[in-house]
Amino acid sequence: MPRKIEITELILRDAHQSLMATRMALEDMVPACEDIDNAGYWSVECWGGATFDACIRFLNEDPWERLRTFRKLLPKSRLQMLLRGQNLLGYRHYEDSVVERFVHKAAENGMDVFRVFDALNDPRNLKVPMQAVKSAGKHAQGTICYTVSPVHTTQGFVDLAKRLLEMGADSICLKDMAALLKPKPAYDIVKAIKDQCGKDVLIHIHAHSTTGVTLVSLMKAIEAGADMVDSAISSLSLGPGHNPTESVVEMLEGLGYTTDLDSSRLLKIKDHFAKIRPRYKEFLSNITGVETNIFKSQIPGGMISNMESQLKQQDAGDRLEEVLLEVPRVRKASGYPPLVTPTSQIVGTQAVFNVLMGPYTSLTGEFADLVLGYYGQTAAAKDPDLLKKAEAYAKKPAIVVRPADLLKPEWETLRATATAIEGFNGSDEDVLTAAMFPQVAQKFFPARHEGPKNLSKDPAKVQAAPKAAESPAAGHETPLLRGPVTYSVSVDGHQHKVTVSPS
Amino acid sequence: MPRKIEITELILRDAHQSLMATRMALEDMVPACEDIDNAGYWSVECWGGATFDACIRFLNEDPWERLRTFRKLLPKSRLQMLLRGQNLLGYRHYEDSVVERFVHKAAENGMDVFRVFDALNDPRNLKVPMQAVKSAGKHAQGTICYTVSPVHTTQGFVDLAKRLLEMGADSICLKDMAALLKPKPAYDIVKAIKDQCGKDVLIHIHAHSTTGVTLVSLMKAIEAGADMVDSAISSLSLGPGHNPTESVVEMLEGLGYTTDLDSSRLLKIKDHFAKIRPRYKEFLSNITGVETNIFKSQIPGGMISNMESQLKQQDAGDRLEEVLLEVPRVRKASGYPPLVTPTSQIVGTQAVFNVLMGPYTSLTGEFADLVLGYYGQTAAAKDPDLLKKAEAYAKKPAIVVRPADLLKPEWETLRATATAIEGFNGSDEDVLTAAMFPQVAQKFFPARHEGPKNLSKDPAKVQAAPKAAESPAAGHETPLLRGPVTYSVSVDGHQHKVTVSPS
Repeated sequence: MPRKIEITELILRDAHQSLMATRMALEDMVPACEDIDNAGYWSVECWGGATFDACIRFLNEDPWERLRTFRKLLPKSRLQMLLRGQNLLGYRHYEDSVVERFVHKAAENGMDVFRVFDALNDPRNLKVPMQAVKSAGKHAQGTICYTVSPVHTTQGFVDLAKRLLEMGADSICLKDMAALLKPKPAYDIVKAIKDQCGKDVLIHIHAHSTTGVTLVSLMKAIEAGADMVDSAISSLSLGPGHNPTESVVEMLEGLGYTTDLDSSRLLKIKDHFAKIRPRYKEFLSNITGVETNIFKSQIPGGMISNMESQLKQQDAGDRLEEVLLEVPRVRKASGYPPLVTPTSQIVGTQAVFNVLMGPYTSLTGEFADLVLGYYGQTAAAKDPDLLKKAEAYAKKPAIVVRPADLLKPEWETLRATATAIEGFNGSDEDVLTAAMFPQVAQKFFPARHEGPKNLSKDPAKVQAAPKAAESPAAGHETPLLRGPVTYSVSVDGHQHKVTVSPS
Repeated sequence: MPRKIEITELILRDAHQSLMATRMALEDMVPACEDIDNAGYWSVECWGGATFDACIRFLNEDPWERLRTFRKLLPKSRLQMLLRGQNLLGYRHYEDSVVERFVHKAAENGMDVFRVFDALNDPRNLKVPMQAVKSAGKHAQGTICYTVSPVHTTQGFVDLAKRLLEMGADSICLKDMAALLKPKPAYDIVKAIKDQCGKDVLIHIHAHSTTGVTLVSLMKAIEAGADMVDSAISSLSLGPGHNPTESVVEMLEGLGYTTDLDSSRLLKIKDHFAKIRPRYKEFLSNITGVETNIFKSQIPGGMISNMESQLKQQDAGDRLEEVLLEVPRVRKASGYPPLVTPTSQIVGTQAVFNVLMGPYTSLTGEFADLVLGYYGQTAAAKDPDLLKKAEAYAKKPAIVVRPADLLKPEWETLRATATAIEGFNGSDEDVLTAAMFPQVAQKFFPARHEGPKNLSKDPAKVQAAPKAAESPAAGHETPLLRGPVTYSVSVDGHQHKVTVSPS
């Protein structure tokens, strides 16, 4: 009997987030739902990540309504979401009761599987959201963000898996957001978790395909005992996206594994999105092939394009090479954070600052916070000099407590703020939307009644139009900086104003 | 000590043949040669396949001069070519002395490794070309064309390997021209050859990437003992092309294998072709992602687009589905030929005829020849009724002898024919060119003095121009039919004229 490998289909969330800047309209997903629901997937990732942001920012679509729609259209399926731990789907830490409410509301609206991650792999940032998932009676998937550094070891990842299991994780996700996971570590980490934590621990592999090697990594992870893997239907796969679902199915044939997916359903899903894809040409990633430079720089593709854009705005487009060399130094000095939202932006922007103005001559507020522990604990200690600079710059001390422990109950304030916005519908869901995206909610709530916008276009008409590459990308690399930010910088006693705009 | 896996770089031949219709000009390859020569490849595939045809048909470039240029620019490298057995680089069988001359001339001009294949896997069609390679003191690589059918088994492929080794093959190539080779058979075939023919038998894997699984197949083949694998630099890889060289390098890390390739050289090669690629936009394959339908139909991608084009010319563009279902039936009736040049065209065109006019109501001359054994022996017996029809249609008997045994010495005739062409330069090389492409040589020889044409264009200017999808594709699927061919067809006693044009 071949062992069954469970598949999570990413087409409704990460596939279009990674390949078409999260712009796919719900109405373009609806016709595929029946086939998705019946194809035999373990779960269907369809919410969270950047989709919430993109819905209200670009699509005039209520993300909660989207979730309820999926719940109706995918009655047989486990719905899955990506949750940024204590950040929820926003860009700051939220106080525990807000986190609990968010998770409960998501569960109430239909969510089944919560993949909870923290950009720093700080388990303290995962504890409350995971407890909330458990108390809602749903599947809590504890996540290990895979990264490569001198301080990240197989045993370190296993130890994190142990912590997550102690915290009640129903399964462990090994999340490779930058396609850095090579076959050998994929095998080793899965094997070590199974050996040390028990054969029954469910392990789920999420890998992007940017470097071209991660389908082999999935194979090796499966050989080591992985239970579930993520993939995206072929017509919206590869590049900075994911390995094609159909290729995962075919690759396993005869090797003692099976996915039991329904090929005829897969074909229909594929054909549907093959038709949809060219309509979003304007938003499609420029990267279609593989990019193996990432192994050297360890900088995800999206982050590079953001830094490039920042440099161009400062008339320093020719200095990218220096910035690419600076990133690993900034990463080292700040304790080797994995590079994923929001740390990829924070580290990238600081590297740009260092190159343009000299090392740590000016710090961004977010970078100072990262260094001072306000995002959580990093895998390695920070550079002591940098720590002093950050304290001086931010005028606050480094912390060792869990960042959210410093937050005061904020639900009532958040409700009051939301209530003041025109078009607020009174629901807790709306309070949460406004809590995560206060500025965007100001525009979205009053416009909501106009209904969703579909940004796709007839490809023939788009040909002549310029690429929308300059519009803010909602994705792993969603810009941290939402508007031009001006920093006052002192160099050799002279004050300079430095303005950084979002890419 | 990790085991060294040898790499053959395909960028100068099959990569651009598969992805840009073999149109790359020599001058666009020249700047990368120094890096290619020093990267540490086992060999550099740079000639043969469709490149010879494309040089004289589209690029006004002397293919022999191209070979001599590579010899000069790649002094440290083994140069490798793909040779269609007794067909050389043309589309018919050549008499043995012509085959010998061709091989010796190729060796004399700088070729080192000859990968010799036959579309039917008939070893008798490989014997003379392989002997010629041996007598020229060069590396003779005997090739197994991988295909899937009820009569093709692992042991059958191993038996063919044995025959090739008996015939003096210096290495065995497992050639997967349609990306059908899944990880399990890749492992099994390599393992069985090593077990039955000896550990020292060199095995070389060539796989296209169309279905998205073959990088995993390379991994499994390597685990089973494969010695060499083919790949293409990442900027011209994937889709109907090949697995990226850099991904092969990275995938092996830590698993007990190494390629010893120079990453900094690979990066330069990659950057060079990344710049060149958009200049050939007009010729670039429409397929950029993966296509796993091939596993069901076993029809290579290029063949589908050719059939589609044939159908459209008959105002029957809506009947492709029927043709796709017909192809496996035609393949079965004709003894399960692998689908590769020229059999892919022959079987595909007959399937189109069958759908348009009824099964075997009309036969193409080439299909009748295939059925009657004029291309060699197939793996299974032909349908007896079809055999009778073919004999009646072609007015000649089925044969069991080696097809080239029926050919009379033809060198002097070929020389005479070449001599009559304006611009013939008197060399044996020119005789061979004219022998393989008599019509094209008529145009090429007189125009040769004008020098090579570079068909690439500034991408900005191409944007507005229509796709050149209708131009003849020089590739694995080079059309067999060179001009409109009119068949006289009798249906229910009525005569019809059916014209089929090349796609």
